[in-house]
Amino acid sequence: MKKSLLAVALLGAFAGVAHAQTAVQIYGTVDAGVTKRTDQTLAIGKRANNTLGFKGTEDLGNGLKALFQLEIRYEPDTGTIEQGAGGVQRPLFQGQSRVGLQGDFGMVRLGRGLTAFQESSTAFEPWHGLPTPAGFQTDLQVAGYTSDPLGYAGNSTNRFSNAIFYNSPEVMGFQLNTTVGMKEAFGAAYTGRGTTLLPQYPVGTEASVLPYSITGTYKNGPAAMMIANERNAVEHRLWSIAGSVMAMPDLKLMASYQRQNMDHTKPVNPITKAWILGANYTMGPGKVLAGYGQKSPDGLAKVRQASLGYEYSLSKRTYVYADLSNKKGLPVTVPATPGSINTYSLGVNHAF
Amino acid sequence: MKKSLLAVALLGAFAGVAHAQTAVQIYGTVDAGVTKRTDQTLAIGKRANNTLGFKGTEDLGNGLKALFQLEIRYEPDTGTIEQGAGGVQRPLFQGQSRVGLQGDFGMVRLGRGLTAFQESSTAFEPWHGLPTPAGFQTDLQVAGYTSDPLGYAGNSTNRFSNAIFYNSPEVMGFQLNTTVGMKEAFGAAYTGRGTTLLPQYPVGTEASVLPYSITGTYKNGPAAMMIANERNAVEHRLWSIAGSVMAMPDLKLMASYQRQNMDHTKPVNPITKAWILGANYTMGPGKVLAGYGQKSPDGLAKVRQASLGYEYSLSKRTYVYADLSNKKGLPVTVPATPGSINTYSLGVNHAF
Amino acid sequence: MKKSLLAVALLGAFAGVAHAQTAVQIYGTVDAGVTKRTDQTLAIGKRANNTLGFKGTEDLGNGLKALFQLEIRYEPDTGTIEQGAGGVQRPLFQGQSRVGLQGDFGMVRLGRGLTAFQESSTAFEPWHGLPTPAGFQTDLQVAGYTSDPLGYAGNSTNRFSNAIFYNSPEVMGFQLNTTVGMKEAFGAAYTGRGTTLLPQYPVGTEASVLPYSITGTYKNGPAAMMIANERNAVEHRLWSIAGSVMAMPDLKLMASYQRQNMDHTKPVNPITKAWILGANYTMGPGKVLAGYGQKSPDGLAKVRQASLGYEYSLSKRTYVYADLSNKKGLPVTVPATPGSINTYSLGVNHAF
Repeated sequence: MKKSLLAVALLGAFAGVAHAQTAVQIYGTVDAGVTKRTDQTLAIGKRANNTLGFKGTEDLGNGLKALFQLEIRYEPDTGTIEQGAGGVQRPLFQGQSRVGLQGDFGMVRLGRGLTAFQESSTAFEPWHGLPTPAGFQTDLQVAGYTSDPLGYAGNSTNRFSNAIFYNSPEVMGFQLNTTVGMKEAFGAAYTGRGTTLLPQYPVGTEASVLPYSITGTYKNGPAAMMIANERNAVEHRLWSIAGSVMAMPDLKLMASYQRQNMDHTKPVNPITKAWILGANYTMGPGKVLAGYGQKSPDGLAKVRQASLGYEYSLSKRTYVYADLSNKKGLPVTVPATPGSINTYSLGVNHAF
Repeated sequence: MKKSLLAVALLGAFAGVAHAQTAVQIYGTVDAGVTKRTDQTLAIGKRANNTLGFKGTEDLGNGLKALFQLEIRYEPDTGTIEQGAGGVQRPLFQGQSRVGLQGDFGMVRLGRGLTAFQESSTAFEPWHGLPTPAGFQTDLQVAGYTSDPLGYAGNSTNRFSNAIFYNSPEVMGFQLNTTVGMKEAFGAAYTGRGTTLLPQYPVGTEASVLPYSITGTYKNGPAAMMIANERNAVEHRLWSIAGSVMAMPDLKLMASYQRQNMDHTKPVNPITKAWILGANYTMGPGKVLAGYGQKSPDGLAKVRQASLGYEYSLSKRTYVYADLSNKKGLPVTVPATPGSINTYSLGVNHAF
Repeated sequence: MKKSLLAVALLGAFAGVAHAQTAVQIYGTVDAGVTKRTDQTLAIGKRANNTLGFKGTEDLGNGLKALFQLEIRYEPDTGTIEQGAGGVQRPLFQGQSRVGLQGDFGMVRLGRGLTAFQESSTAFEPWHGLPTPAGFQTDLQVAGYTSDPLGYAGNSTNRFSNAIFYNSPEVMGFQLNTTVGMKEAFGAAYTGRGTTLLPQYPVGTEASVLPYSITGTYKNGPAAMMIANERNAVEHRLWSIAGSVMAMPDLKLMASYQRQNMDHTKPVNPITKAWILGANYTMGPGKVLAGYGQKSPDGLAKVRQASLGYEYSLSKRTYVYADLSNKKGLPVTVPATPGSINTYSLGVNHAF
């Protein structure tokens, strides 16, 4: 069992059992820590998504490549597949499941994954898109928007299933990213302008339009920009504009503005707007993250979030972190959510 | 992170963390494309099964080997584990989960996998056993038979769980393949000659007989043959005979005939017969697939299927494909299935 | 596809796709056999847990290491994720899901895994902790105790979720192992001193105390000892003391005594005591396992178990086994369990 890989390599010529190592790369993340939320008991939680993935590329010649990626997502505190609200178990390959071709024309993939907007926008969010309560990605960065409204409650809110993904090559700093979903029915109803008994989108309804997501990104030295437009299966529409600049070699500043229009399913107050300001400051192995943002849903109280975090790298693959965050204006639910929620987190993140 | 495997090999001698590479081979397939069916919206679908597998062999000396294989099956368009009819989620290792020994005596395995008939018959089917609507494997090739009638609705129909698998060595072109299942109860009822309230096989019933599957295969130069007999847990019996010949170096012709008898659960019209003719013609990196077949269920309309396909290999591991197929005589269901269904598919298949 | 790993190693320098092999070790076990129990039909079953795991360590310098381990558990006879009583599907990474740091101070991990007691005690059990009916681990070795009483029926009974695990370094043969769980709610009710309608722990109740598990182990030449104390989320308490000695170079003798107190949920007869004597005798590639034990639940009949087993190694990674066991005094259930149950097993175990 303790043979070196060199011995294995020499033996491999005879055994011929090792070919897959040429084609499959296994990678992943384990992130776990302790979390305290104002209204909850001390818990073991995560800051980043936990992944175990399999990916590979094959050179087809003439600059053409075949590629695939399959990514398991799981909860390390309980050992289960990633679960959404209400304990809903998400797909095994919740991270993504895609296959495609890459060449001079760009990259085309089929399957399931983050939409162009959800993927491009993480570069302009101070917690680089992590789902931690300290981060802004899952709520303010998308103005409360969901990419997958016909999925089951607790499902992923930032992915298209049954989709075609196209990323253009980068030309003079510009890149175009497009995701187009099919109209295939999912299985969950969406009440919208209807009632629980007569929902606007009953179970099994096909989307009336093709869901899509488009982003244009531009990079020029220390500056980067994004404009984005997305429409989901129930015709909610989202616009976003974002930018970042390396103000100093170690200091990245970023800002974004987004606007969601739900008038297709919500007759009154259909607009939600949000903006975020953020900063990342690197100090040797340490990194400070800071952000402030507001979400303004039509006719409802503003949501305000302020967050501060620190990462300390023990190596290129392992860091420890501490985050604190305050969020005001969340709807009061039963059991009663207080008007102002603090969250503290402390943990370790290991990539492999 | 970008060290070469050679460096890893040299380091491996010290680190001793890499031994598993000697034993485990990771392999799989990603297949995704767009599909249009007469009565359905444009969809992202698959042509082949999508697999992510782990397998290995260990040389025990004296020609004896230990071997195992675990195969995940998944849906790339939604990222879930493979799902059957009604969204039923199949086992994680739907492909197979087996462990066994191989030696001069042949190969003995325990666990779950394709029955001998379901495995041997794919060599005589023009889409080499793929589950695509253009293929014949899942319906005409088995005369509508299911290997697993007591499994949950939507389960796999061509596997035995709780089984012993034996493959003889090949002697002068002959090989014997046997699968024997246990009587262990599954958990789903089978109505049969009973009623929904009083099914012939209530939930949790053990099989009254041992399910088994036997095939004899014979290869002689360009020709190959198979005879097969299988009996499932509710005593349906299937006979099949099939043959193929390389009529030219690039042209494989094949034919099969199969007959299912369900008289143990169906008092009238228990017999279903089917036959298929097929051809594969290789032209450099391209391959044409063609097939025609009929299924004749006692007392019901014939089902007729004609299919044409084309594969073009971009490499040894990646090909693109186009299939078209017409099927007539399917039972009309609600929502109404038209009498004649066309299916068109276009996609990419990548093995790793 | 049949390139040697050496060729791969040389190519790897250019392709740069193989870095993950440095970080991830894939390992596992496949164990399957035939089992006959007095009151059940012949079945395909397992003797050991079946695992497919991913683990790795990263050297952070100064003697510090980051480490993770993710372990799938599955049933090879049906291909599913491991299932508990009533067909309950357990978490994907049922084996464990943990991440942590190791250094001069010992090892700290976060996540889900065996408690300190459940892990330490296997060294003093003659079937080294295997879940086979011939083994004592799951019942007598723990005096009927469960580490996870608020989990769903059929869940794992020897793990903490949401826990912190600490193992001290070994100092002069002594080692301290500690597991502390959080109070986070699980989702299943526990009747206890209440009724089904008004259970002592309703669904979603947080534990009133922190669950914990502590063991101290001591090794001195041929002798080893353990003392253990554990308290679960409903305040059941367990004490255990165990020892083993290599009486001859090939003969290991072992004994354990354990006492469970359930007075927090059981007003009468809250104490269960158990003891086990065991032996392992190695003869070349063969190994004989023997054990006898008693469990004495307050006010109920004693449970007596006697077991005999034999393992024969075909290699370092593969062995075949035969076990026989008799257990008396199990509660009679519907369908009626006979007063005395024999179990016979024959199978193969392959590690990779």
